[in-house]
Amino acid sequence: MLLGNPYEDIEENEGDTHAKVAKRVTSITYIVIILLLVLNVCTIWIFKQKRIRYIHETGLSLLYGVVAGLIIKLVGVSISEVRSPRIGTCDKVTYNFSEETLPYYITTEFTNGSSKLKRLYAYSDTLMNNETALVVINKLSEALQFDPEIFFYILLPPIIFFAGYDLKKKHFFRNIGSILMFAFVGTTISAFAVAAIMWLYCQTGMEAGLKEEFIFFECLLFGALISATDPVTVLALFSELNVDVDLYALIFGESVMNDAVAIVLFESVLSYAPYRNASFSAVGFLSCVGQFCLTFFGSFFIGTVVGLITAMITKLTRLCDFPVLETSLFTLMSYSSFLLSEAAGFTGIVGILFCAITQAHYTSRNLSVESKQRVFELFETLNFLAENFVFSYIGLFLFTYDGHEWRPGFIVCSFLAIAVARLVNVFPLSGLLNLNLRQKIPCKFQLMMWWAGLRGAIAFALAAEYSEGVPRRIILTTTLVIVLATVLINGSTTTTVLELLRIRVGIVEDAETDHIINQLAQKQIGDEDLHRLQEQSGLGEMGWRFLKTDYSYLVPLFTIEGSTAEDAFPWCGPVARWLTSERRADRQESLGDDDVSILEEYIPVEDTEAIISHRRSKSEIPSSSKQHVTNNTRDQHVTNSIQNTVPNSYQNEELNME
Amino acid sequence: MLLGNPYEDIEENEGDTHAKVAKRVTSITYIVIILLLVLNVCTIWIFKQKRIRYIHETGLSLLYGVVAGLIIKLVGVSISEVRSPRIGTCDKVTYNFSEETLPYYITTEFTNGSSKLKRLYAYSDTLMNNETALVVINKLSEALQFDPEIFFYILLPPIIFFAGYDLKKKHFFRNIGSILMFAFVGTTISAFAVAAIMWLYCQTGMEAGLKEEFIFFECLLFGALISATDPVTVLALFSELNVDVDLYALIFGESVMNDAVAIVLFESVLSYAPYRNASFSAVGFLSCVGQFCLTFFGSFFIGTVVGLITAMITKLTRLCDFPVLETSLFTLMSYSSFLLSEAAGFTGIVGILFCAITQAHYTSRNLSVESKQRVFELFETLNFLAENFVFSYIGLFLFTYDGHEWRPGFIVCSFLAIAVARLVNVFPLSGLLNLNLRQKIPCKFQLMMWWAGLRGAIAFALAAEYSEGVPRRIILTTTLVIVLATVLINGSTTTTVLELLRIRVGIVEDAETDHIINQLAQKQIGDEDLHRLQEQSGLGEMGWRFLKTDYSYLVPLFTIEGSTAEDAFPWCGPVARWLTSERRADRQESLGDDDVSILEEYIPVEDTEAIISHRRSKSEIPSSSKQHVTNNTRDQHVTNSIQNTVPNSYQNEELNME
Repeated sequence: MLLGNPYEDIEENEGDTHAKVAKRVTSITYIVIILLLVLNVCTIWIFKQKRIRYIHETGLSLLYGVVAGLIIKLVGVSISEVRSPRIGTCDKVTYNFSEETLPYYITTEFTNGSSKLKRLYAYSDTLMNNETALVVINKLSEALQFDPEIFFYILLPPIIFFAGYDLKKKHFFRNIGSILMFAFVGTTISAFAVAAIMWLYCQTGMEAGLKEEFIFFECLLFGALISATDPVTVLALFSELNVDVDLYALIFGESVMNDAVAIVLFESVLSYAPYRNASFSAVGFLSCVGQFCLTFFGSFFIGTVVGLITAMITKLTRLCDFPVLETSLFTLMSYSSFLLSEAAGFTGIVGILFCAITQAHYTSRNLSVESKQRVFELFETLNFLAENFVFSYIGLFLFTYDGHEWRPGFIVCSFLAIAVARLVNVFPLSGLLNLNLRQKIPCKFQLMMWWAGLRGAIAFALAAEYSEGVPRRIILTTTLVIVLATVLINGSTTTTVLELLRIRVGIVEDAETDHIINQLAQKQIGDEDLHRLQEQSGLGEMGWRFLKTDYSYLVPLFTIEGSTAEDAFPWCGPVARWLTSERRADRQESLGDDDVSILEEYIPVEDTEAIISHRRSKSEIPSSSKQHVTNNTRDQHVTNSIQNTVPNSYQNEELNME
Repeated sequence: MLLGNPYEDIEENEGDTHAKVAKRVTSITYIVIILLLVLNVCTIWIFKQKRIRYIHETGLSLLYGVVAGLIIKLVGVSISEVRSPRIGTCDKVTYNFSEETLPYYITTEFTNGSSKLKRLYAYSDTLMNNETALVVINKLSEALQFDPEIFFYILLPPIIFFAGYDLKKKHFFRNIGSILMFAFVGTTISAFAVAAIMWLYCQTGMEAGLKEEFIFFECLLFGALISATDPVTVLALFSELNVDVDLYALIFGESVMNDAVAIVLFESVLSYAPYRNASFSAVGFLSCVGQFCLTFFGSFFIGTVVGLITAMITKLTRLCDFPVLETSLFTLMSYSSFLLSEAAGFTGIVGILFCAITQAHYTSRNLSVESKQRVFELFETLNFLAENFVFSYIGLFLFTYDGHEWRPGFIVCSFLAIAVARLVNVFPLSGLLNLNLRQKIPCKFQLMMWWAGLRGAIAFALAAEYSEGVPRRIILTTTLVIVLATVLINGSTTTTVLELLRIRVGIVEDAETDHIINQLAQKQIGDEDLHRLQEQSGLGEMGWRFLKTDYSYLVPLFTIEGSTAEDAFPWCGPVARWLTSERRADRQESLGDDDVSILEEYIPVEDTEAIISHRRSKSEIPSSSKQHVTNNTRDQHVTNSIQNTVPNSYQNEELNME
C-alpha cells in the first residue's frame, strides 16, 4: 500500500501515538542535559571539597558538554549514516506503509541519482529510523542544536540579572569612572582592533574565499561580539580567594557593563547592513551611532523605570506580609524589564541588567527580611542552573552542530587579534585613567585584566543567533573555539597568574569610603569639607553629585529608608505624605530611627561603637530627621540588628578611618 | 517587482531584521501574560488584606485571563477582519514587493473565488498587516493559543511536585485506605458514569451530528479527563480556615491521587483506539487494563527510584555544605523523574508526584537546614507562579482559541453528568468504607467532598493536548466551560457550604496517632499491644506493616535519621558500614540521640515533658539504639531543638493522649 502523503493518514488515525512519540523524544533530549548537570553538580562538590582550583565549574560544564556531544555524534554515526531526509542528500523520498510495521514504522526509500536506499523509519516530528537508539540520537543531535529563543528568553536573563543584583554596589560606584571608560571606550577600541586585524588577514588571501566573504562589515560584527568578556569564571575564583576589592570591582564591573555595550554595539553594527556594500557611508555610520545611543539609553531607561516601579509598589503596599507574593512580584517585574526592552526594539539583556541594579539599590530595601533572602536564594539557584546549562550547551554544540565552517588560519589569527585588541584596550586606557585617579591602577592589575578577558555565553549567543550564510558560520565556529580555549586555559591559570603577579589575596576591604558615604547620608558634611572628602573617596565630581542626589531624594522617594518623602520633598504637600509609606512607622518603632538602616549598609560590624557614639552626637546636632533615641536599650537593639544584617564578609574587617 | 518566493530574498538580505521582528513579537506575547500575573499578585494582596474569600486566587487568574482574552479579541477584530493567510479563507495568495515599502513590508493579494483583497503586510514568522498594533495583536491571539509543550513540560511539573512535597504525610498515610479507594475505584466509577450519561445523551440525537461522532470511546475519554479533580482552590481555603484535618486529608489526598489515576486512565483509554470501531473487544479491553497497570506502576517506580537515588546522594555526600549545589541537585533530580517517566513511555505527572512524596519523606531529612528551607521556598514560589500562569492561560483560551465547538445541550448535560458521577462515586464508596473504618466518614463530609469536586488544570490540559477533530474540540470547549464554572461557582461558595453543613473550622489536629506512630518508631510496642494500637490508629494491616518496615529499614537505609544502617542491617557487614553516613556522627553529637529527629516530627511541642520522661524511661528499656543520654542539660538541648523545628501549626495544639 503506497501513499502519497503519509502524514495525512498518520494524523487522522494515529495522532494520539504520534503526539506520544514526539513527547517522548523531547523528554530524552532534556534528560541528556539534566544528567549532564547532575554530573556537574556532583563533580563540583568533589572539587570544592578537595579544593581543586585547576578548573572552574563553567570549564567543567563545557568539558562534560563536549564529551557528551562527542558520544552522541559517534553513537549516532555508528548506527547509520543516513540522516533525516530534511537535511539529506537524496533527491526523492518515497514512503511506504507495510502492514506488519504499522502503526509505528514506515519503510522509506531514498532515491539519490541512480542509487536507492531503503530504511525503516519510525515517525515523530521528523521521520526517523526504526531502531530506538537511532530514533533518539538522530533527533537528539538535531534537538540539541542551538535554539536562540531558549538561550535569550530563559537562560541568559537569570544570569545577567544575578550579575547585576549581586553587584558589590559600593565598589562598583567607587570605580564607576574607570568601569564606564573600559566598557564604552575599551569595548569600542577592542571591536575595531579585532575587526582591523581580521580584515587585514582576510585581505592577504591566505585562505580561499575569505577575501570576498569578509568585508569590513562582517569583521566588525565579529569584533563586536568577541569583545564581550565573561564575568563568571574568573570572578568565582577571585571571590573565593578574596582578591583585592578594587581589582575585583574593575574586572567585574567591566565585564558586566561591557557585555551590555558589546551587545548594543553588535546590534548597531547590524543596522549598518543596508550600507555594507558601499565603501563608507557617513549616513550609515551616523545612523549606527544613533542606533547605539538609542538602544543603550532606551534599554537603560526601561530597566530603571521597571525597577523603580517595583520599588514603589513594594514601598506603598504591605505585600511584605506575604513573602510568596512579594517574591513573585519581584521576579515577574524583573523579567518583564527584559521583555519590555525587547518589545520596544531595544536590548533585553541591557534592560534587565539595569533593572537588577535598580532592584538591588532601591527595591531590596523595601522587601521584608524573608523576601530579601528568598529573592537572593531564588536567583542564586536559577543563576547556578542557567550558567551550567549554558556552558554544557556550548560544549555540546561543538559536536552536535552540523554547520561548522572551520578555517584554521582564521581561528589562529583571531586569537592573536583578541590578545592584541585587549592589549590596546586595557593598557592605554589605564594609563589615561591613572592621570586623574588618586588610586592608580597598578601595572600588575592591568596585566591581570588583560589575562582575565575570557569569552563566554554572550559572545557565543550573539554568534549563534545570527548564523546564516558561510561568513557568519565561520564566525560562529571561531567564537566557539575561542570560548572553549579561554574558559579552559585562561580560567584554569588564573590562580597561577595571580601568584606570578604577586597580587595580594585574602585581604579584606577598607571602610574608608563607606564612612564618607555614610557621613554624606547623614547630611553631616558641610560644603567646606566636600572637596577634601571627595578627593579622599576617589569619586569624581559626577559620582559625588549622584550619591548626594541619590541619598537626599531618590532613596527617600523610592524606599522606606533614609529620611521620609515628606522631609525630602517638603514642597510637595499631600503627595509627599501619600508617598510616605506607612511601613516606615513600624520600622521606626522597632529601630528607633530611619537612618539606621542606611547605616547598616555602610558601616562594618566592629564599628558599632562608632554608630552608637555617632548617633548620640547626632542627637545633639539639629537635623531634619524626626525622632532621636538616645537611651542605651534602643542603641543595643540597633547594634543587634546591625550584627544580624551585615553580611559575613564584613565580619573580619578592620576599622580604618581617617 | 514580483517575486515567486518572497522568503528566499528576505532571508538572504534581511535575515537580521527578520529575526528582530520575530523576537519582538514573542516578547509582547509574554508581556501580556506577565502583566496579568502582576495584576493578579496585587489583587490577591488586596483580597488577603481585606479578608475577602468570595473568590480565590485561581478564580481571579481565570477572570483576568478571560477579560484579557476578550480585549485582545475585540481590539484585533476592530482594526481589521483579515486574518493571517495561514488560518485564512482565501484560496490564493500573491506576494508583491514594492520598492517604497521595502525592507519591512510586502503587498499581499488574497484571491478568494472572484473577490480580491489587497493588504500591506509586515513579515515576521507569519505575514502580518503593516499597522503595528495589528501586527502584534493578530500574532498575539495566535501566540496565546494553547501550547501543550509549555503546559506539560514547564507549568504542570512544579504544581504537581509541590502538591506531593507539601502533602501532610501523617494524615495522608492515616487515610491512605480511603484515599486509594476514592482515587482508583472512585475515578473509574466516575469516568464510566460520565461516559454512560454522555453517550445516552448523544444517542437521543437532540443535537445534530453528535450521534455519529460520539461513539462510546470518545465519551469514555471525556469521562476520564473530566474525572480529574483540582486540589488548588478548595484546599487553599480549607488551609486558611483550619478545617477538620481528616476532611482536609481526604479531599487533598483524593484530588492529588485522582489526578494521577485520571491521567493514566485517559492514556489507557487512548490505547484502545485501534479497537474503537468494533462493538466491544475483549482483547482491547484487557490491553487497556494492562496499559493502565503498566503506566501507573511504571511511573510510580521511576518516581520513587529517582527520589531514593536523590536521598542516597544527599546521604552519602557532604553536599549539605553547599546549599546551592544541594538545592540544584534536588531540583534537577526531581525534574528528571518527570522526564524519565515520559521518556520511558509512562506518565511524567504521576512520576513526579511520587518522586515528590519520596523526596519529602526521605531526602528532605538529609538536607541541611538551609537547603530544606530553600527547596521549600523555591518550589512554593514556582508553584505560585505556575498555578496563576496556568489559570490565566485557561482564561485567555476562552476567547483567543479559534477552534471552539459549542454544543449547548452537550455542555448542560455534561454538568448533570459530572454531578451524578461524583454522587455515585462519593456516597457508595463512603458507605463501603464506613463498614470497616473506626473513624466513619460523616454524611456532611461526604456532601462537602461532593461539592468540592472542582475541575482544573489537568482536565483542561488533557482536553487541549488531544484536540484534533470535531468531537475532541467539542470535548475541549465543554471542559473549558466546566473548569470556569466549577472554579468560579463551587470555589466561591466553599465557605458558605462549610457553614451550611456545620463543619467545624478553626480546629487543631489531635496527637493520638502521632503518639502511636512515635511509639512504633521507638520500637517500644510489643506484638501483644499491636492489635489494640492498630485499631486505635485507624490504620489497616497494610498501612501498619508499611510503617513498621519504613521506620525499621527504609529510613535507616536512605536517611541520616532513625537507627543506623549498621544497626538495621547487621547481616550486611561492610556494605551497611559504607551506607552509614558520616554526617550521622555530627548530628549525634549535637543532638545526643539519633531518634530525636524522628520524635521531632511526630510529637507536638507541648509534649516536650512527655519526650523527656519518655526518653528517660526509654533508657531503662533495652533497645538496639546505641547511646542514651539522660542528663538534664542534654534533654534541655533536645527540647530546644524540637521547639525550633516544629512548625507553628502545632504550637496551640492540645495534648490528647489515651
